[in-house]
Amino acid sequence: MRKVCVVVGSRANYSSIKSAMRAIQAHEDLQLQLVTAASAVLDRYGQVVDLIIRDGFTPDARLFMLVEGETPGTMAKSTGVGLMELPTIFERLQPDIVLTVGDRFETMATTLAAAYMNIPLAHTMGGEVTGTIDESIRHAVTKFAHLHFPACSEARDRIIRLGERPDDVHLVGCPRIDLVAETLTATADGLGSVFSEGVGGQFDLNEPFLMLSQHPVTTEYGEGERQISQSLDAIAAIGLPTIALWPNADAGSEDIARGMRKFREHRDDSNIRFFKNLPTDTYIRLMRRTVCLVGNSSSAIREGAYIGTPAVNIGTRQDMRQRGQNVIDVDHDTGAIADAVKQQIAHGQYASEPIYGDGHAGERIARILATCSWTLQKRITY
Amino acid sequence: MRKVCVVVGSRANYSSIKSAMRAIQAHEDLQLQLVTAASAVLDRYGQVVDLIIRDGFTPDARLFMLVEGETPGTMAKSTGVGLMELPTIFERLQPDIVLTVGDRFETMATTLAAAYMNIPLAHTMGGEVTGTIDESIRHAVTKFAHLHFPACSEARDRIIRLGERPDDVHLVGCPRIDLVAETLTATADGLGSVFSEGVGGQFDLNEPFLMLSQHPVTTEYGEGERQISQSLDAIAAIGLPTIALWPNADAGSEDIARGMRKFREHRDDSNIRFFKNLPTDTYIRLMRRTVCLVGNSSSAIREGAYIGTPAVNIGTRQDMRQRGQNVIDVDHDTGAIADAVKQQIAHGQYASEPIYGDGHAGERIARILATCSWTLQKRITY
Amino acid sequence: MRKVCVVVGSRANYSSIKSAMRAIQAHEDLQLQLVTAASAVLDRYGQVVDLIIRDGFTPDARLFMLVEGETPGTMAKSTGVGLMELPTIFERLQPDIVLTVGDRFETMATTLAAAYMNIPLAHTMGGEVTGTIDESIRHAVTKFAHLHFPACSEARDRIIRLGERPDDVHLVGCPRIDLVAETLTATADGLGSVFSEGVGGQFDLNEPFLMLSQHPVTTEYGEGERQISQSLDAIAAIGLPTIALWPNADAGSEDIARGMRKFREHRDDSNIRFFKNLPTDTYIRLMRRTVCLVGNSSSAIREGAYIGTPAVNIGTRQDMRQRGQNVIDVDHDTGAIADAVKQQIAHGQYASEPIYGDGHAGERIARILATCSWTLQKRITY
Amino acid sequence: MRKVCVVVGSRANYSSIKSAMRAIQAHEDLQLQLVTAASAVLDRYGQVVDLIIRDGFTPDARLFMLVEGETPGTMAKSTGVGLMELPTIFERLQPDIVLTVGDRFETMATTLAAAYMNIPLAHTMGGEVTGTIDESIRHAVTKFAHLHFPACSEARDRIIRLGERPDDVHLVGCPRIDLVAETLTATADGLGSVFSEGVGGQFDLNEPFLMLSQHPVTTEYGEGERQISQSLDAIAAIGLPTIALWPNADAGSEDIARGMRKFREHRDDSNIRFFKNLPTDTYIRLMRRTVCLVGNSSSAIREGAYIGTPAVNIGTRQDMRQRGQNVIDVDHDTGAIADAVKQQIAHGQYASEPIYGDGHAGERIARILATCSWTLQKRITY
Repeated sequence: MRKVCVVVGSRANYSSIKSAMRAIQAHEDLQLQLVTAASAVLDRYGQVVDLIIRDGFTPDARLFMLVEGETPGTMAKSTGVGLMELPTIFERLQPDIVLTVGDRFETMATTLAAAYMNIPLAHTMGGEVTGTIDESIRHAVTKFAHLHFPACSEARDRIIRLGERPDDVHLVGCPRIDLVAETLTATADGLGSVFSEGVGGQFDLNEPFLMLSQHPVTTEYGEGERQISQSLDAIAAIGLPTIALWPNADAGSEDIARGMRKFREHRDDSNIRFFKNLPTDTYIRLMRRTVCLVGNSSSAIREGAYIGTPAVNIGTRQDMRQRGQNVIDVDHDTGAIADAVKQQIAHGQYASEPIYGDGHAGERIARILATCSWTLQKRITY
Repeated sequence: MRKVCVVVGSRANYSSIKSAMRAIQAHEDLQLQLVTAASAVLDRYGQVVDLIIRDGFTPDARLFMLVEGETPGTMAKSTGVGLMELPTIFERLQPDIVLTVGDRFETMATTLAAAYMNIPLAHTMGGEVTGTIDESIRHAVTKFAHLHFPACSEARDRIIRLGERPDDVHLVGCPRIDLVAETLTATADGLGSVFSEGVGGQFDLNEPFLMLSQHPVTTEYGEGERQISQSLDAIAAIGLPTIALWPNADAGSEDIARGMRKFREHRDDSNIRFFKNLPTDTYIRLMRRTVCLVGNSSSAIREGAYIGTPAVNIGTRQDMRQRGQNVIDVDHDTGAIADAVKQQIAHGQYASEPIYGDGHAGERIARILATCSWTLQKRITY
Repeated sequence: MRKVCVVVGSRANYSSIKSAMRAIQAHEDLQLQLVTAASAVLDRYGQVVDLIIRDGFTPDARLFMLVEGETPGTMAKSTGVGLMELPTIFERLQPDIVLTVGDRFETMATTLAAAYMNIPLAHTMGGEVTGTIDESIRHAVTKFAHLHFPACSEARDRIIRLGERPDDVHLVGCPRIDLVAETLTATADGLGSVFSEGVGGQFDLNEPFLMLSQHPVTTEYGEGERQISQSLDAIAAIGLPTIALWPNADAGSEDIARGMRKFREHRDDSNIRFFKNLPTDTYIRLMRRTVCLVGNSSSAIREGAYIGTPAVNIGTRQDMRQRGQNVIDVDHDTGAIADAVKQQIAHGQYASEPIYGDGHAGERIARILATCSWTLQKRITY
Repeated sequence: MRKVCVVVGSRANYSSIKSAMRAIQAHEDLQLQLVTAASAVLDRYGQVVDLIIRDGFTPDARLFMLVEGETPGTMAKSTGVGLMELPTIFERLQPDIVLTVGDRFETMATTLAAAYMNIPLAHTMGGEVTGTIDESIRHAVTKFAHLHFPACSEARDRIIRLGERPDDVHLVGCPRIDLVAETLTATADGLGSVFSEGVGGQFDLNEPFLMLSQHPVTTEYGEGERQISQSLDAIAAIGLPTIALWPNADAGSEDIARGMRKFREHRDDSNIRFFKNLPTDTYIRLMRRTVCLVGNSSSAIREGAYIGTPAVNIGTRQDMRQRGQNVIDVDHDTGAIADAVKQQIAHGQYASEPIYGDGHAGERIARILATCSWTLQKRITY
């Protein structure tokens, strides 16, 4: 019975690993251990831990590790706090494998704690290419990981070029697509209660509406307020009702939040609804229905490809991420954003492209974790 | 005037960067900033910071970051402490470039603090291949670094294969060889006062003697006591007087230290002299004179190649490090070790092989740091 | 030239020590060192550090130490972060005396760092009695402090009863009253631009208005939302325009903030203006003009006595604080609060009572710090 | 069923609470929770946690928190590390009461974590008067504690004078005396295997021998090496065989250890046996038998009074601790120490004085913890 410990540090994290957690929990040769941490335990980001518990998982530890400030420096300090506490938690839980997700800054705490403690590390969604510091984090985690679960074939090839042994690299697809597939096959519409949360205007989701999800770009720290303002102005110019999400906890988040607050205070916001978080399935259903998803969220590209969501991707955050037909890329420029959105509205829904998986990534991960072997002493292949 | 901040975390660290520090300090377009940290500030490891000050450098910060325990878990926690404090220090010093050394566990704290804070990171001695967790750390640091200063051509090629832009990779040689070159050209013998430090026996350094320098292997945690005992038994069997070094601060250090203490307590140690630390130049002079350097120190391979020191390298710690004619590799086995040592004694001094540099690495590093450009947003090249 | 290091951790902290900082800076035998920390460096609490710099002080260090969560546990963790970093800062600054303020939770980090490092500790505003964990913190700091600067005679007597040597206890008055005195003698009205900050309604400050300032009570964690709702309902019932302040960063802050946000979202808030922070002098001028200050802020009692502000003090937070005629105490009950507010409106302004000082506390503190002696080894007097 | 959580941070800590832990474990209305931390989990201090497990207790958490350096600054930092992690542990264990011991620096981490988290805090051995920073720590802990278990009547009176409610102060005696009583009534001699541990000479324990136990004095940081040298010289002058203990982990420990190492290296140490730790019962039996206990350990005074051990107490560390006839106080002066030791040798064993308890303190503590009530909101009584 292998104990697999997952550290969930944010809502995005959770969506990216939930189907794997479920499959691990269901697998007779695996035992799931769960550490909730970072923004996943904070009220300010919608208490993801409560959602996790409602989904039937039991956290073995709850770790407050974010140092306030949302500057680049506090992002490093927060990782330090996590790195100080995770060893104590891992020593208690004695996992056989630690499974870490993606490329958020907290992931380095999980990665270093496991690697330094000689606990085999499995990593999902490695090998992709994006902007921000995530780019470095992701490849660095690959260099610590003993098992790799890339989401697409290009990512797999890249991991192998990074000097990892091909036998340790398992193309499984993206676990987030598992949730998308599931949601899209459900009969329930589930959008009836959207407006019971959030603040701002209300509108009819059967009529055309936009979505906005824009996060800080670490290496463009200080630009966030200006960047979100361009997007908000474009949206205001289009004039369609809009579902807007608050930014994640990366450095620079406060800049974007300030831009959004100023917009709310100084402009007519009756046509916009602001959400700290949306349930994953609500978000997916909105993606299937929106006439255009605007911003720099990876969901536009990954889930968007599977769903066929028209998307306008702004700025550098998703540079070099493999994308399908559904995405138009633009700069942080009100005019360009507005034009692209209009183009997408004119086009309408795209056909589905299963670039990031077929809806069974989680099961594959669990199956491999239950049976695979690994070599603790890593060595580059060249 | 670019401010270049170096974080020195151990005696080995210091030897690896000293000539670059000197060249940076001497360069008119560069300003050296210095953070001393980890074992470099501890009495237990010989207060390297005092040596640094005597050498004419002025620490801008002194950082106690090692959490006691010397378990794999405390190695992670120590990195966490460093990662919590370095942002405060970097915010004060506002370096233009952070220069980090090699692959010790504390290096990750420096690396993450700089990278998360959008400070360009330069890295020496990347691209090499060794055993232990250092292997993962080194390549992970490469994935965060903006400038690379590999020590040998194979390492340079490997960094480029890791997806770094060739323009950012500068083959400069190993700065430690700069010190070796300097020491070997000095007229002074400098070995007169060796026995004023250390504990144990005294002997004539003009007669044949062995050296022992053996460190813990992170991924073989718990084996340290057994491993050092094999080496000590072999040395006792040879019967030559021996200069022995205490292990570094990696996880497992206490195991090796215990093995050494037990040897001292239960065996005749009149023929062995134990040192916490030796001045770099003393160590180099001893390497030129010893009939064989035994253990798993990288010095046997790197400096050894340049000096021509007969060496017996034990176990996996230096696996895949490019080596010259002067090294014989053996397992942790008393008989094998003793045989190899005898073979080296019979062979005598080797010819010099400048695999790891020509003695001018530090100057090259300073010159490049003063003029180079970089791209803050890294992106893998494939 | 004695170096006196002040650690400022919040806006309240700063108001409580500003006049002493100014007097220290002006004193020829003293050098001011300044560490800004905790909520004083956070955007979320109005970047007090910027205000400090505008006031002519230069921070020697900036310390992000608040761990997000605002639970009792993160209050402890935040203190831990501060306690980890302050030693590094103190080792660099080498203060002769550390001056700490009051009883906020971060104060323990300053206190322990100084005390453990054998740096003499001076403490303002000790010896008072209040509710919440501050009560324990304040007396514990007294037991670590070498010099005491109580604000009122009862506090001085209490410090001596706690076993401190009378020679080390100096009744100086409260430095916050220094600022009040100064503000009240200024000719400028200074209220013209109040509504350029904050969110919510605008109104005429020459007409009667209320003020609300209510903070979490640590030992009543979880009650904050209910408590603030009682107050907000009472204010809504009175119907006068109101200046409302967001709560401080203590555990439970998020509960109160949530209550305030809900009020804003679900009720007519056109009559209320919400502020993250107000400049100290603006706040004082508003206190002189408001028909009633409602909540549980100590300002109602301390500054209020000097100014003569009619005040309604709610709940346990200010229990046992020496108070003047200007305060009516009530429970967290909408009806009781509303009745008391009406009574204060009917009474109008009170006469000034200088219970907490005469406006020269800061100068006294500087004078004593410049000349006093102390005994590093403390010993209880009985 | 009340959950009582004990945090054990050192060997001395454990001896001071062991009988209470046993009584709590045995009490049907109490459940013992155990956190082992600080030097109690370190090899360097004899792995007290192993002893604890052998005694039948099960640690619920193991916390590495000591930052290397043993300077005053790292003592503060270590407390910071503890304070960062204990909240996570307490949130998991959900204790009803936290029981903390005495006055060591780590105690502040336990104290603040519990107090800030609104967990009732019980404190043993408060109200006493000693030297070093312990003096401040002890009284500060008293100001945070909700229940007090002083060891002697003077301490009880002092706690009440500190403003604690008499109902919360329970005179129970010192739990360490419980162990002494137990050991002295055992038939086994237990000294047969003393020399299977430690390093140095061996001798006949039936012949007269001395004991040496000397710790650093925090406020005399930097003096440790000189101080221990005076003691070692005196002992060498007496010429009797000696049992010597290594110092505890307080700031300055390394100075004393260095002095001891130098003595071992440069002087004839065949007459001295050095121990990292001794089992409590061995230590007690040695105390009953030694002709004189030399140093500054509190055991000379507390256990010594009960046992009747002739003792020479050196320096300021035990100043103002209530003491019996068995103690002679001297300065750090070789001559004075030697004279006092000779005087004690001439006198021989003293009569027992039960100043610090009758051997039933632990049972009393458990009984009170099972039934007592407390007020979470503390308030000074005057």
